[in-house]
Amino acid sequence: MVPAVSADCSSTSFTPLVVLELASDTKQEAIAWLLSRIRDPHQNGGIELLVEQLGLGDGGSEKENPNLFLVGAKWQRLLSGAEEVGLFKEFSDGSMRGFTCANKHNFKHFEGDGDSFLSMAECQYIIKHELDTLRAKDETHVPGHPQAKLYPGKSIIRRLLSKGVLIQVFPLHEKEELKRLSYSWYQKIKLSFQPLDDIRRYYGEGQALYFGFLEYFTFALVPMALIGVPYYLFDWENYDKYVVFAVFNLVWCTVILELWKRFSTSLAYSWGTLSRKKAFEEPRPGFHGVLGFNPVTGREEPLYSNTKRQLCVYLVSLPFVLLCLYLSLYVMMIYFLMEGWALSVHDEEPTFWTRVLLFIPSIIYAVVIEIMNLVYRYAAEFLTEWENHRLESSYQNQLILKVLVFNFFNCFASLFYIAFAMQDMALLRQSLATLLITSQILNQIMEAFLPYWLQRRRNKKMMRKVQKRKAVAEAELPLAEQVRLEADMSTYLGTFDDYLELFLLFGYVSLFSCVYPLAAVLVVLNNITEVYSDAFKMCRVFKRPFSEPAANIGVWQLAFEAMSVIAVVTNCSLIGMSPQVKAYFPESETQLILWTVAIEHGLLAFKFILSFIIPDVPKHIQIKLSRLEFESLEALKKKRQLYVVGKCLKPRSSQRGSSEEKRR
Amino acid sequence: MVPAVSADCSSTSFTPLVVLELASDTKQEAIAWLLSRIRDPHQNGGIELLVEQLGLGDGGSEKENPNLFLVGAKWQRLLSGAEEVGLFKEFSDGSMRGFTCANKHNFKHFEGDGDSFLSMAECQYIIKHELDTLRAKDETHVPGHPQAKLYPGKSIIRRLLSKGVLIQVFPLHEKEELKRLSYSWYQKIKLSFQPLDDIRRYYGEGQALYFGFLEYFTFALVPMALIGVPYYLFDWENYDKYVVFAVFNLVWCTVILELWKRFSTSLAYSWGTLSRKKAFEEPRPGFHGVLGFNPVTGREEPLYSNTKRQLCVYLVSLPFVLLCLYLSLYVMMIYFLMEGWALSVHDEEPTFWTRVLLFIPSIIYAVVIEIMNLVYRYAAEFLTEWENHRLESSYQNQLILKVLVFNFFNCFASLFYIAFAMQDMALLRQSLATLLITSQILNQIMEAFLPYWLQRRRNKKMMRKVQKRKAVAEAELPLAEQVRLEADMSTYLGTFDDYLELFLLFGYVSLFSCVYPLAAVLVVLNNITEVYSDAFKMCRVFKRPFSEPAANIGVWQLAFEAMSVIAVVTNCSLIGMSPQVKAYFPESETQLILWTVAIEHGLLAFKFILSFIIPDVPKHIQIKLSRLEFESLEALKKKRQLYVVGKCLKPRSSQRGSSEEKRR
Repeated sequence: MVPAVSADCSSTSFTPLVVLELASDTKQEAIAWLLSRIRDPHQNGGIELLVEQLGLGDGGSEKENPNLFLVGAKWQRLLSGAEEVGLFKEFSDGSMRGFTCANKHNFKHFEGDGDSFLSMAECQYIIKHELDTLRAKDETHVPGHPQAKLYPGKSIIRRLLSKGVLIQVFPLHEKEELKRLSYSWYQKIKLSFQPLDDIRRYYGEGQALYFGFLEYFTFALVPMALIGVPYYLFDWENYDKYVVFAVFNLVWCTVILELWKRFSTSLAYSWGTLSRKKAFEEPRPGFHGVLGFNPVTGREEPLYSNTKRQLCVYLVSLPFVLLCLYLSLYVMMIYFLMEGWALSVHDEEPTFWTRVLLFIPSIIYAVVIEIMNLVYRYAAEFLTEWENHRLESSYQNQLILKVLVFNFFNCFASLFYIAFAMQDMALLRQSLATLLITSQILNQIMEAFLPYWLQRRRNKKMMRKVQKRKAVAEAELPLAEQVRLEADMSTYLGTFDDYLELFLLFGYVSLFSCVYPLAAVLVVLNNITEVYSDAFKMCRVFKRPFSEPAANIGVWQLAFEAMSVIAVVTNCSLIGMSPQVKAYFPESETQLILWTVAIEHGLLAFKFILSFIIPDVPKHIQIKLSRLEFESLEALKKKRQLYVVGKCLKPRSSQRGSSEEKRR
Repeated sequence: MVPAVSADCSSTSFTPLVVLELASDTKQEAIAWLLSRIRDPHQNGGIELLVEQLGLGDGGSEKENPNLFLVGAKWQRLLSGAEEVGLFKEFSDGSMRGFTCANKHNFKHFEGDGDSFLSMAECQYIIKHELDTLRAKDETHVPGHPQAKLYPGKSIIRRLLSKGVLIQVFPLHEKEELKRLSYSWYQKIKLSFQPLDDIRRYYGEGQALYFGFLEYFTFALVPMALIGVPYYLFDWENYDKYVVFAVFNLVWCTVILELWKRFSTSLAYSWGTLSRKKAFEEPRPGFHGVLGFNPVTGREEPLYSNTKRQLCVYLVSLPFVLLCLYLSLYVMMIYFLMEGWALSVHDEEPTFWTRVLLFIPSIIYAVVIEIMNLVYRYAAEFLTEWENHRLESSYQNQLILKVLVFNFFNCFASLFYIAFAMQDMALLRQSLATLLITSQILNQIMEAFLPYWLQRRRNKKMMRKVQKRKAVAEAELPLAEQVRLEADMSTYLGTFDDYLELFLLFGYVSLFSCVYPLAAVLVVLNNITEVYSDAFKMCRVFKRPFSEPAANIGVWQLAFEAMSVIAVVTNCSLIGMSPQVKAYFPESETQLILWTVAIEHGLLAFKFILSFIIPDVPKHIQIKLSRLEFESLEALKKKRQLYVVGKCLKPRSSQRGSSEEKRR
């Protein structure tokens, strides 16, 4: 996959994979120390990688940071690294197995030297892993930077990052590969699926699963949209038939989430991340505490009391979140006041402008919601950072939980209020439409076009500078300029925001689409543009992210399932409130409610039973997995039996004889 | 643990562990073949165990089956077997690790030869496992029994069992050990806990977990019982205060189940079954199908279409279960007719006898329910057998599901009907009391006293026979008679019925104890006698069962959790129906119901959040587990790095040189 070293970028003698950017005021002794640690062989505690300083480009100005370093590795090093990180690759019999150097020739696509066996993203992931595991030996601090303390076993790169000596570590794009990917991904208008395997090869499994989920979700919405259109066109004011729609909604939510689990398992299996064991997780770079001994590893590292963290969570973060929820409620009430005022103005003297005015409060509210979400997001990040979680995964889970609850509340509180407190379906429909459309437009602008515009400006400036100096005819930038350009690109912050957006869209559709069937259509349209804009931003706007091995969409699966449970409750209530159902119980409202509640409980029970009955792993993959497990059990047994015959029984029986002699 | 071969039972030259009973009409050539297969060394496909025929006793009569065989093994064989089954034992550093012969001396309590390292139950488990893995080589059938077909890789013992050639395989009791265990367990009246570790050593983890759960459940009920007594004594007719009781009930159910998970994890860790990997599961003995190749193992074995089985389940079993439920409803209606008749008789002319008559329908109904449960149980076993499940575990799960649903319905339908359709709390209380007391009395009789009485008769007969012949002064039976006596004992059918009983008791308490607070007291009393009667029947009535490694109570945890969800719904409804709560909403029943439903949903959500927040594994065990995992990861990494340095890099680089030469 990785092109051989091209002749024109003469400054490097190997394929550069990853870039390290050190602060421009880093001491020379620190640089020399770091480079030698990276280059040192394993025996001396190094990681045996290749590393070289990037030239200043052609007549680079003083303003440019000279401390950019290119990291690469020999093929053999990468292969042994692949074994170390536990990469799964396709075996000659079609199953996925952990790669080992010992039987590398039995893996599919391993040809000759194996120099096209690993994709560049995999190579970059291996390099990142190796860099992360570069540990201090007996240094007490980084040479020349006495404030950056080290102790044996501490990850050097993480310490440098947290002390600001190391500004960033990022993998390089592959120009050719990227061009090919972006062509097949978003540049040609087509009705085919996304090239998930190519995305995975270029960006890793985490990204590919997100795009897979986005696509799956879009296709799953199509039946809803198809049913929604005639409802919208022919029954605009007739809520009665929405009952059927709501029931469909319920079943659909459960089924698509269960099927997604199966689909994602298939994907993860074919990408080799399903059976892959998680590596031991290191503390996050920002984690601090009193020096002590980790009870698990026995290493000296900062420890932080769990009780203290829980106190922070329950006594500070929780009240803060509740306060924010209260604030959000307050803003909602102001919105309803405005809404009422606009309506009274319109009722007094209805003109075209007052009709427009009717939409103004919703639009303002939608914008305010987006702003509140944004501000809250920063507060949540600050709080979660302050809670000082030891592991990145628990940090992420806490952050997701905080942001999810607030976003859910912020986006849906007004809709719940309109639906159940005001019981005004016309207003509900109008608010839903306004919220949906406004937030979509805002999102697309904030997410893709704004960053792209900023990026383009920077890009052009760089181009102009280079051309001024060198008058390059072709648009190809030399490696040094390319690296500097990429170093200036924005950093992709992960799939968090993308999933959050999908989560809220899923909420709009599953909770309320029975009163506004066009919601599904709007979401489908949004998702289609989302695929393109997300693909575009991944390829053109952001630095290439390190690939993130993932076997599923993690905590988001849970979030979507929780939403589908809430959807059952909401839809049942909406059904119970519909005039058609009310007509069945003309004399007694109590009867109506009791029936609604009973049916709702039945549906919830059915939902749980369904999620038990539908197996999460498709049959053919289950067979493959158990075959592997069976084979390893058999191999173990054989090894043991050989061992037992060879070592255990024979010396034992002689020992036995001697001990029996002793007894006598 | 196992006593050395006692001098008096001169017929055997090794410690007998397990007994094989073959049918008395088994051909001599079949016996000779089986014995030689058992004795053969590994290289010849045997399992290297010791086996000897049991003598006919002193002047045995012709009626006795001569084909009883004692199986044992050498210590070294048992140790290697322990490694093969993946037994976890305590390591010298206090952690639990898989036993290996290689570093056996690093395990705690491994002294000298290690002949007291394994408990007798563990030895018997190993022997059973070895017997189960005795596989056919190229025999086409059992010699002398052409109807018992064999094919390569088929488990011989399972085939012999399913063809009736082998009548039973059972482990022997240890007289001394049993005496000690039964003394500390149930013979001394005490307030201490059960000797769970001793129970586990003698009967295995499955049994010990059951008794652990029984004890835990009893203690967990004590607060309920303590609160229940004053409610019963002082507020007999005052439902109002039961609201507090019901709320307590709710929280209590969730909390005890979550805490049990933690407790059972601790137990399983200290017994070494928590991290133990499951062995590959063989098909059940009764499984049949068309011969084909197993996609997982690649072995030739009977295959049975999954679709066919699912059709059986959904088209036959499911309708049958529904039919039975309908029948049960029908019986319930008859009970209510009887109840009404008895009431009318009492109302007409109330005497002492009519007061007694009032209880008669409930008692009859309780007896009928027990009988229906029993009959249904046989039907469910037949049906599940007929569904032809491949694995014992899926057979068990299907059977448990069928029996659970019916038992739940059968026991609780009438109570639900009284509570919610008739809304008659006095009747509910009376029915609950009658059902609870009757079923307890019936259970204790059926479970312990009846089998004990039968066993005692047999025991005495045997004693008389022996004494007649030999006039042994002491009550000690010689080995041959002891084995024959145990062979005649009833077989313990597993913990199914015991758990089922606890499940129903849990239902009575959690669902309805707010209207009959004495239920908890009754259940506590029942549980205390249950401990004694269960212990008694394990020690005196039944054959010793093979120990069953278990890490938790399996599907029963799920069943209890489902019950606690139902309990939330039921208690909320009962609260909503209470006069005190009704008084808060004097004008609107709708408001009352809506509030009840809202609170119920809140409680359910709280319940799920609680079960997420409370970690299933206690912190100190989590640390131990991750330390083990960390160590194995580190060991693997070191091994790989050594390997990489030694094998991967060096030959590679020379190859690389040659391939580069080729390119030029």
